[in-house]
Amino acid sequence: MNPDRVKEFLLELQELIVERLEQVDGKPFLRDEWQRPEGGGGITRLIEEGNVLERGGVNFSHVMGERLPPSATAHRPELAGRPWEAMGVSLVLHPRNPYAPTVHLNVRFFCALPAAGAAGEPVWWFGGGMDMTPYYGFEEDAVHFHSMCKRALDPFGPDYYPRFKRWCDEYFFLKHRNEPRGIGGIFYDDFSEGGFEHAFNLTESVGDHFLPAYVPILERRADTPYGERERDFQAYRRGRYVEFNLVWDRGTLFGLQSGGRTESILMSLPPIVKWRYDWHPEPGTPEARLYTDFLKPRDWLA
Amino acid sequence: MNPDRVKEFLLELQELIVERLEQVDGKPFLRDEWQRPEGGGGITRLIEEGNVLERGGVNFSHVMGERLPPSATAHRPELAGRPWEAMGVSLVLHPRNPYAPTVHLNVRFFCALPAAGAAGEPVWWFGGGMDMTPYYGFEEDAVHFHSMCKRALDPFGPDYYPRFKRWCDEYFFLKHRNEPRGIGGIFYDDFSEGGFEHAFNLTESVGDHFLPAYVPILERRADTPYGERERDFQAYRRGRYVEFNLVWDRGTLFGLQSGGRTESILMSLPPIVKWRYDWHPEPGTPEARLYTDFLKPRDWLA
Repeated sequence: MNPDRVKEFLLELQELIVERLEQVDGKPFLRDEWQRPEGGGGITRLIEEGNVLERGGVNFSHVMGERLPPSATAHRPELAGRPWEAMGVSLVLHPRNPYAPTVHLNVRFFCALPAAGAAGEPVWWFGGGMDMTPYYGFEEDAVHFHSMCKRALDPFGPDYYPRFKRWCDEYFFLKHRNEPRGIGGIFYDDFSEGGFEHAFNLTESVGDHFLPAYVPILERRADTPYGERERDFQAYRRGRYVEFNLVWDRGTLFGLQSGGRTESILMSLPPIVKWRYDWHPEPGTPEARLYTDFLKPRDWLA
Repeated sequence: MNPDRVKEFLLELQELIVERLEQVDGKPFLRDEWQRPEGGGGITRLIEEGNVLERGGVNFSHVMGERLPPSATAHRPELAGRPWEAMGVSLVLHPRNPYAPTVHLNVRFFCALPAAGAAGEPVWWFGGGMDMTPYYGFEEDAVHFHSMCKRALDPFGPDYYPRFKRWCDEYFFLKHRNEPRGIGGIFYDDFSEGGFEHAFNLTESVGDHFLPAYVPILERRADTPYGERERDFQAYRRGRYVEFNLVWDRGTLFGLQSGGRTESILMSLPPIVKWRYDWHPEPGTPEARLYTDFLKPRDWLA
């Protein structure tokens, strides 16, 4: 178990992703390094008003504390009060073009040390995943994204993709809308199966497969002609993204409620969002097809 | 204790407010009546793309159940599992003109009956309040709004205004921004002081003082000339409104997580919202004055 190796991987992953996205967009990401008063800090890389990306961020953070708050360990109450550290890379991209989907990636590592003076081993786990949220759905995009998710996981065992795909469908679900956030992907948490090397390598693979999963989709949709109608629908649907992240996402809520760096956490929110009362697309329109054909759990690789 | 009288008051209040707002705006509110599968229902009155109001709603709801969920009674765990009913009027108005403030009113009544077969009295309380959220602050508006809040409460005792004003400042606070939502107003909950008649009359008075507190402000700001700069700042600041309602507001969260009517609950969200990374107004601008002069607890009637 070696947190330094995880940190090195995460920092390299952030660089690699930002460099590639800068190539695609043509506009550089800004870079903000920040410290956390209670310990640790992070590097926020962010783009706004890019040529392709209307708003997006790639955050690295490494934070630690002397006593783990009970809210952080709902699943493992025995860890409350222990010294801890957490590190991760979090990414959300909101392209300007409504035909290009929003995407999310997260890879993280968590470690709780034995209580001061006590014997015992550290407890650690990995978590992560990626998922995609289209405004106008394309089957080939969903299939491509999911096959890259599968490719990331298959070397570690054939069960991981179906298991983590289901976990993603369950996690990224807006209960108050009875609606999935998008076409899913993969999600996992509390993962230490097979020991550190196995769990770390799997997480590396998830991170490494983000660019090949998403960039081809972004590149093929970014120049699609669109008008006010599509922009309007995109702004409306982005409201769902806000609702999920602020109402249901455990990471966002824990960050905001525990004194995390607000501007880095909320880089996940879209640049322009609209709410409209009880709006429904007309049956048969491309907007309606998002709901009927894409916003439901589907086996994209069947 | 008579819930029917409360219900009658709430329905009349909704009508009265909507009629007056329709006069001000010139566009009628739509009317949606809805039933809740588990019992009860409501009447949603809503305006979008009005002449003065860009989006706003005045909800009445009356809901009930056989067993109160524990999450609804954090303060009074002894009530969990009892038959209950709740009713209220909730209002949020987002004017189009950035010089006109957003406003919120809520008055509500809650009642838990003795457990089936058990002896005892019903437990009941009132809650409510109103608060205002300017984008460009005006001292005279804040003073007017607060003096009407005080006028609503003073007949019931001189301590209510200062107490409920402080409660409002504490409740409508964005901890993750270390920032109040606006210039405050009054807020109270779990209120049964002085018996049913006293508590009901106080709540009636809060409801009745909403129009005189807000309409004069709306009328004097609604025609102020503005440009893209002001609209942009309004959209940015509306993001804070979304953050508060979705992350911190107990009523919104309870409603969304417990199967409330999503579209009625989320009528509180603004029509167009923008998020921008780590943005700060330039010192000395009118936008900066909102932060320095208005977004802090102040005794407006000193």
